[in-house]
Amino acid sequence: MNQFINEKETLVTDAIDGLLETTGGALTRLDGYPHIKVVCRTDWDKSNVALISGGGSGHEPAHAGFVGAGMLTAAVCGEVFASPSVDAVLAGILAVTGDAGCLLIVKNYTGDRLNFGLAAERARAFGLKVSMVVVDDDIALPDLPQPRGVAGTLFVHKIAGALAETGADLDTVTAAASAAITGMASIGKSLDTCTVPGSAKEERIAPGMAELGLGIHGEAGVQQVAFKDAKNAMDLVLEKLESRIGSGPHVAILNNLGSTTPLEMSVLAHELATSPRAANIKYVIGPAPLMTSLDMHGFSVSVLAVDDSNKAQLEAPVGPAAWPGMNAIAPVQTRPLPDGLSPIKPIPSSNPETRDLLERCCDLLLGAEQELNELDAKSGDGDTGSTLATASRALKARLDDLPLADPTQLFRAIGIELSQTMGGSSGVILAIFFEATGDACASGLPMPKALLAGLNRISEVGGASEGDRTMIDALAPALKALPDGLSAASGAARNGADATAKMTRAKAGRAAYVPEENLIGFNDPGAEAVARLFAHLA
Amino acid sequence: MNQFINEKETLVTDAIDGLLETTGGALTRLDGYPHIKVVCRTDWDKSNVALISGGGSGHEPAHAGFVGAGMLTAAVCGEVFASPSVDAVLAGILAVTGDAGCLLIVKNYTGDRLNFGLAAERARAFGLKVSMVVVDDDIALPDLPQPRGVAGTLFVHKIAGALAETGADLDTVTAAASAAITGMASIGKSLDTCTVPGSAKEERIAPGMAELGLGIHGEAGVQQVAFKDAKNAMDLVLEKLESRIGSGPHVAILNNLGSTTPLEMSVLAHELATSPRAANIKYVIGPAPLMTSLDMHGFSVSVLAVDDSNKAQLEAPVGPAAWPGMNAIAPVQTRPLPDGLSPIKPIPSSNPETRDLLERCCDLLLGAEQELNELDAKSGDGDTGSTLATASRALKARLDDLPLADPTQLFRAIGIELSQTMGGSSGVILAIFFEATGDACASGLPMPKALLAGLNRISEVGGASEGDRTMIDALAPALKALPDGLSAASGAARNGADATAKMTRAKAGRAAYVPEENLIGFNDPGAEAVARLFAHLA
Repeated sequence: MNQFINEKETLVTDAIDGLLETTGGALTRLDGYPHIKVVCRTDWDKSNVALISGGGSGHEPAHAGFVGAGMLTAAVCGEVFASPSVDAVLAGILAVTGDAGCLLIVKNYTGDRLNFGLAAERARAFGLKVSMVVVDDDIALPDLPQPRGVAGTLFVHKIAGALAETGADLDTVTAAASAAITGMASIGKSLDTCTVPGSAKEERIAPGMAELGLGIHGEAGVQQVAFKDAKNAMDLVLEKLESRIGSGPHVAILNNLGSTTPLEMSVLAHELATSPRAANIKYVIGPAPLMTSLDMHGFSVSVLAVDDSNKAQLEAPVGPAAWPGMNAIAPVQTRPLPDGLSPIKPIPSSNPETRDLLERCCDLLLGAEQELNELDAKSGDGDTGSTLATASRALKARLDDLPLADPTQLFRAIGIELSQTMGGSSGVILAIFFEATGDACASGLPMPKALLAGLNRISEVGGASEGDRTMIDALAPALKALPDGLSAASGAARNGADATAKMTRAKAGRAAYVPEENLIGFNDPGAEAVARLFAHLA
Repeated sequence: MNQFINEKETLVTDAIDGLLETTGGALTRLDGYPHIKVVCRTDWDKSNVALISGGGSGHEPAHAGFVGAGMLTAAVCGEVFASPSVDAVLAGILAVTGDAGCLLIVKNYTGDRLNFGLAAERARAFGLKVSMVVVDDDIALPDLPQPRGVAGTLFVHKIAGALAETGADLDTVTAAASAAITGMASIGKSLDTCTVPGSAKEERIAPGMAELGLGIHGEAGVQQVAFKDAKNAMDLVLEKLESRIGSGPHVAILNNLGSTTPLEMSVLAHELATSPRAANIKYVIGPAPLMTSLDMHGFSVSVLAVDDSNKAQLEAPVGPAAWPGMNAIAPVQTRPLPDGLSPIKPIPSSNPETRDLLERCCDLLLGAEQELNELDAKSGDGDTGSTLATASRALKARLDDLPLADPTQLFRAIGIELSQTMGGSSGVILAIFFEATGDACASGLPMPKALLAGLNRISEVGGASEGDRTMIDALAPALKALPDGLSAASGAARNGADATAKMTRAKAGRAAYVPEENLIGFNDPGAEAVARLFAHLA
């Protein structure tokens, strides 16, 4: 059984206890396991009309997940896809019903109707006021005299729950529930069947097909249709609902049937929000898992007219975290992109000395292309030399455009140039080095300290530090020695680069994935390039 | 492509727009599609420290779903499992950062570090204060020098978000984020790989196996282990985390990696809440999808010590509906079952006339067993006669125990007897009929009206009315005629029963599934039984 459960026999009780344990004490249950599984609010004093729903399990968060302030008072849970017993329902009624009475909210399945119905009768024999409404919102089978109750049940929980919370009497709550049931319609669509614990999965839906008008217990859909894309899937669902969407604003529940990903649900939400068939759907509840069917890869849409009397009830805040709230559907609002994305073109300026220095560095790297590539082949993909050569070539071609007389702007300009022409991780890392150095210059740091600031930044961003077999092993000692002169820096760089040949702990970059023994005896190509540059400068 | 998407190229933008359209205008985005996908709070005035996170898509609700009051200011979204560009991140920073500066919260993947890092550098060149923290909470590979960033990222969003919302400065927010990162640890487990849109699914995990220590981009887990059950799965995860759970109270994020059902997540929550390895885990966030990996059938657990400084931050209410809140882990509290579940044994009393009537009715049904079964075989499973005979036999055996002199109690007692001995839907329906009649007697209604009240109740509960080819077609006219005497009632019952032979609209019960032509010419067996009873009584 490839599901995160223990055994079928304890699946529902394990799950209920998990819910109770993770809701901060807001929920309790009757001491009737395994046969009586009733979840109740702990903050309940019986002063208002109690709302009791339930039915087979496998539809979580419905119904136990909706027990709490402003929604259900109790949920009576059966085994997976099986109605709870008369005794379980009666226990729920007797446990939470006071003088104000209770409303049973029942989905239209024979077992639920009968068991809740008989329990209601027995509770009445105790002198309790008990009403019952039957939700039959599924329009999959237009000619079926007894339509199923599906995700529209949540409208009833919410509307009746908000009313009961305000102290409305049983007749008022029942009438509002009945009015919601009369006005609502739902239909579902799925790409796959659900996996009932302990049973083999029914492979009923061929790849490329989808079922429209399915039930929430794995019943086959009314029709199989070719699956095209999300837009078409939502369109076919809304086509069925269209005749049930009247004038005036409506609210839609966009329900995840189980294993549809948040990403897919958002795509479906976009199709719902922008479909011409849903022009009167002005509010949405979800997308969220509300009335699931185990792990069904599907969704359902339920619609209801929103009017002055139910809008506040639908919007009222509630206790249960599983309720996603109702939002107005809003067109996408965009803001203009900020200024500053196109790098400001630096004003070229001349400095023959700097120009000469840059040119010679580039030439050195161009000349070392082959050797650095060979070194890189030991630990990486053998392109360090070529990558640096490409960048050097591009930089040389841009010498006339660079702000050579302004160190701050020059470092920044080199960074931008490298990020655009060098590519790969190393291009970004060198860009960060030069741009951070430029920023440090701008803040008034002297050159050696500004370069160290750049170094610290690439260490922070790239996550590598000395000893990790990167160019930092040559660059860090060189920059630290720089106040003592270029010659000292060059010596430190060479020592640092040569030390990488003994390092096996490649932490960052591609060498991290190379077996240790392949690295021994060869300098890191980045560190080697740095050492050569400093030697040349010295 | 069996997923509810349109095309791979518009998947992320469709999903972002769906999110924006269904969050009531709380979110906006920069006008940079398709390359720049930045989601921002609409209520943002730049007066506080801005929090910016992001990375590849496919982890929804992270990160765009956590943009809102008390959490992120903006999310920069890449394509599925791909880092956003430097320009996209820079656009996000420039769009939302004011004088208070911004904190970038980055998961530890090279692409994200580099692109966020370079963007940060460029934003600093504009004079903005930019900090960056790198989340590396994954402990799957204990020796990996650069652990991945996974669901623990949510701790950072939440703690830093709560602090920033109160006006804390950038250093304070950054320090709190860094402290959380240092203290946290996460690990995941999955029963299956994820399906990357546009790619074939990698069938890496054999049935019966699970991966422990997997990444959130479909990277293989550190080890494959045999999957036993939910308890063992959670135990192996907590075993890895155990050394990272110190003294004092801790909080755990229980994260759904994508397609695990709410039922399974609740079972896992139960195992987490009750594991001896998690004794110091006193708070929980979830179970909920927070940092998913497309449709991965798995979960992850992230732990962090809770102290005086972060508790209020973790608990503070936030805007985004995707945040499930933090709850104290509470042991299951139970309440005793209410009194009244065991039916009160009626006090036997005698009434020879009633006794004789009951006995004769039972005998009549016993004698009609064969005929009624044959009639039922036309439309059902041929057991109506036997079911009624069983009930009659049981009732006859109980005649000495019945309160024969008290109609109210007698009707209730017969109902209870039938619900226990008759079984099936018909047993419940007849129980409701007799018990509702008893309740009506108790409320003072005269007998014919009390019987009609019982009839109305089974109509309400069972959903059938006259014309639906059930026993109601005989019972309803008989009870309506009863005030005119038993003879009139008997005639009405017979006419009603015979009329069912012409009815093709079987609405309730098994006959609803029988082809119309099979029903024509045969009385409904329930209606026939009623007619025979009335004939006998007359």
